[in-house]
Amino acid sequence: MKTLLKNGFLFTGGLEPVRQELLVEDGRISALLPPGTVVEAQEVCDLQGRAVIPGFVQTHVHLCQVLFRGRADDLALLDWLRTRIWPYEAAHDEESTYLSALLGCMELLAGGVTSVCVMESVRYAAFAAQAMEETGIRGVFGKAMMDYTDTPAALGGMPEAFLETTEQSLERSLALMRRWHGAAGGRIRYAFMPRGILTTSEELLGELGRLSGEYGVLVHTHACETEPESRLVERRRGLTEIKYLHRLGLTGEKLLLAHCLCVDDEDMEILRSTGTGVASCPLANLKLASGIAPLQRMHDAGVRLSLGSDGAPCNNNLDMFQEMKYAALLQKGVAHDPTRMPAETVFRMATEGGARVLGMEDAGLLAPGMRADLAVVDLDRREIAPAPPSLSALVYSGNPGVVTDTMVDGRWVYRNRTFPWIDEQTVRVRARAVVERVLARIP
Amino acid sequence: MKTLLKNGFLFTGGLEPVRQELLVEDGRISALLPPGTVVEAQEVCDLQGRAVIPGFVQTHVHLCQVLFRGRADDLALLDWLRTRIWPYEAAHDEESTYLSALLGCMELLAGGVTSVCVMESVRYAAFAAQAMEETGIRGVFGKAMMDYTDTPAALGGMPEAFLETTEQSLERSLALMRRWHGAAGGRIRYAFMPRGILTTSEELLGELGRLSGEYGVLVHTHACETEPESRLVERRRGLTEIKYLHRLGLTGEKLLLAHCLCVDDEDMEILRSTGTGVASCPLANLKLASGIAPLQRMHDAGVRLSLGSDGAPCNNNLDMFQEMKYAALLQKGVAHDPTRMPAETVFRMATEGGARVLGMEDAGLLAPGMRADLAVVDLDRREIAPAPPSLSALVYSGNPGVVTDTMVDGRWVYRNRTFPWIDEQTVRVRARAVVERVLARIP
Repeated sequence: MKTLLKNGFLFTGGLEPVRQELLVEDGRISALLPPGTVVEAQEVCDLQGRAVIPGFVQTHVHLCQVLFRGRADDLALLDWLRTRIWPYEAAHDEESTYLSALLGCMELLAGGVTSVCVMESVRYAAFAAQAMEETGIRGVFGKAMMDYTDTPAALGGMPEAFLETTEQSLERSLALMRRWHGAAGGRIRYAFMPRGILTTSEELLGELGRLSGEYGVLVHTHACETEPESRLVERRRGLTEIKYLHRLGLTGEKLLLAHCLCVDDEDMEILRSTGTGVASCPLANLKLASGIAPLQRMHDAGVRLSLGSDGAPCNNNLDMFQEMKYAALLQKGVAHDPTRMPAETVFRMATEGGARVLGMEDAGLLAPGMRADLAVVDLDRREIAPAPPSLSALVYSGNPGVVTDTMVDGRWVYRNRTFPWIDEQTVRVRARAVVERVLARIP
Repeated sequence: MKTLLKNGFLFTGGLEPVRQELLVEDGRISALLPPGTVVEAQEVCDLQGRAVIPGFVQTHVHLCQVLFRGRADDLALLDWLRTRIWPYEAAHDEESTYLSALLGCMELLAGGVTSVCVMESVRYAAFAAQAMEETGIRGVFGKAMMDYTDTPAALGGMPEAFLETTEQSLERSLALMRRWHGAAGGRIRYAFMPRGILTTSEELLGELGRLSGEYGVLVHTHACETEPESRLVERRRGLTEIKYLHRLGLTGEKLLLAHCLCVDDEDMEILRSTGTGVASCPLANLKLASGIAPLQRMHDAGVRLSLGSDGAPCNNNLDMFQEMKYAALLQKGVAHDPTRMPAETVFRMATEGGARVLGMEDAGLLAPGMRADLAVVDLDRREIAPAPPSLSALVYSGNPGVVTDTMVDGRWVYRNRTFPWIDEQTVRVRARAVVERVLARIP
């Protein structure tokens, strides 16, 4: 199957796009051709001056939380966790988990995201995978692992639905891995996802380092998200979070850490030298009042960076355009230097950087041989005009509304601003009914 | 003329909307009625479950800069001013000023903004007013006044096109005031707009205080935007910017200050006790690396606050949804307190607060007797679902795409996502041609 995208502009690396045709063959980009090249293809798409970008890679999302968007705002952190997020997650069932993920995947694809790293709840993670499989998004997912019952008071009040033994946690994770790792032609992969250090036993963490090596799967967890939690880890485990994970042998290219706000120079050097990936979530870090990650410093230190939206209740969108803009603007404003984190840098974090930390060498760029994971964007818009087409326009004036089409593995998964295989309105109606049912379950 | 908006939800004050019908009569809201009330009206709009909000009030925008969006990004501040903003503004002509304002007004109206405070360049301000009159937006505008040629080195390199004497500056401003103050049935008002303290003579500033009282027009200027500039003012004029303006008799309800980042407790007390208005521009302050305004502290101190987008090149949108979200999230993140600046507070700043600092007692709220300045929003959207309809959904998940219609003075100025009286595509084509012409003029 060949698809030709013609009469468009391609963002192939620099700030400005180039006028080239893009040929997709069997799920991969097979050639970038001079304008007007005649190619026989089963499908020819006239882009009419629109631009093509590599699809965004969102590296930290809780799809199970999409269902609770707008229901946990402006709250103190403990209220947020204890009275909302935990009870909500614990009240999920199979259908609600599936619908929540379906809503999330639709929002992601419609915003030009082609790959996502999904941390689900302790239960029902397979139903998120099912939604990922059906919507056509590429991704890594895992069930949250929480075997450590000796959680500090600050994390107390965790619902019983989350409790599992180390053995149960491993067994369930391995079962999911066997079922899903490499599913949908390799589009879906599994990862081990301990929720955080304070809710995971040292035994389990150590074992995950071993299993990650044995099976070649990623480990993804939260780390260094807030000052108080980081200090607590230091008191309880005797080391900073990064040094602790390093001692357990988890750091490396197979480890992806969400947040990393509270990292010292030694931590950064560990992250850099081991090739450990970071998923920064600028909006969630502000909304939950954690602070601002030292993105520029990590970037300068050579740490592998990417961007994520975290859960819908702490954002409240799954929108890579917002993440890029906040990432750029925050670093400028805080350092009093407007040249920091320019458009190209944050765009690279949102595409190539994300692909790399997820272990994909063949995605995140428009180049021959790369997977055909891409989005078509219309930069001739009211909120962008009359800016010239550039990454600058995309990052500083763009939004999901500029995305007209999204392709994963050479297949259109979002086409002319609609989903070819999903009745979106029906999903929304079902989701509204199911959210009421789930909330009614909470005492 | 009576217009009935029925089957909708109205945001009349609280976090959640109420199910009521809204009756508009002769440009004002005449009644909020129980659902299903039968009213004879020339126009009946079935909102089909959409919601109505008071129109946003943007209190600091440079419409003449919209034409240069996307052409001044990631630059150091002096490069930004000297190599971009000043040469661009100086190269404007009448048509380019008009088209730039037209683009800006369209973006504003399509984003639910019904009132705007516009600081134009030194020249051609009348052509912005013309665009405001034609698009139907309500607003206050003024030409920039810059009579002070002894500008510090940091502000040197100002184009000759900007130079004017104190007399010229006053004469031109008064001529514009006589022509435009109260135009379009009172929809357009004039304001005196010295660009900043360092580019205005003390004589002119003092005279503006007097004229503002005599004619009842606002004075609008930049103040306390950056640490270095604030310190320079202190060295040159012997007082902090706020205390200096206070000594000259300018502070009061007729003064509106853009930015106010660098304000001490005494400054805040002056702002509060005099009722001086503040137009905070969170995105522009980050992008130009000025920092983060102490919004929560000013709010707690009782200072009258509102929000603005500043110029398109330092933002790069004129989008009140982004301003609200940044205002809320920044204050939470920086203070490590997620309860700060909740949705209701930033929404009030963006509506009622803006109306008040612009001296409008009869706008910014959906209530009988208020002007019919409002927007219709569709909260059943992919990026909001399945959140319940609330200000929280609007502030944390909303964007200009949710706005379907905008009304000013009881007249639809944006209807079903298009402009009834403007051929938008033609304007964009003209703007693209004109921006090339203007840029070609720059040496």
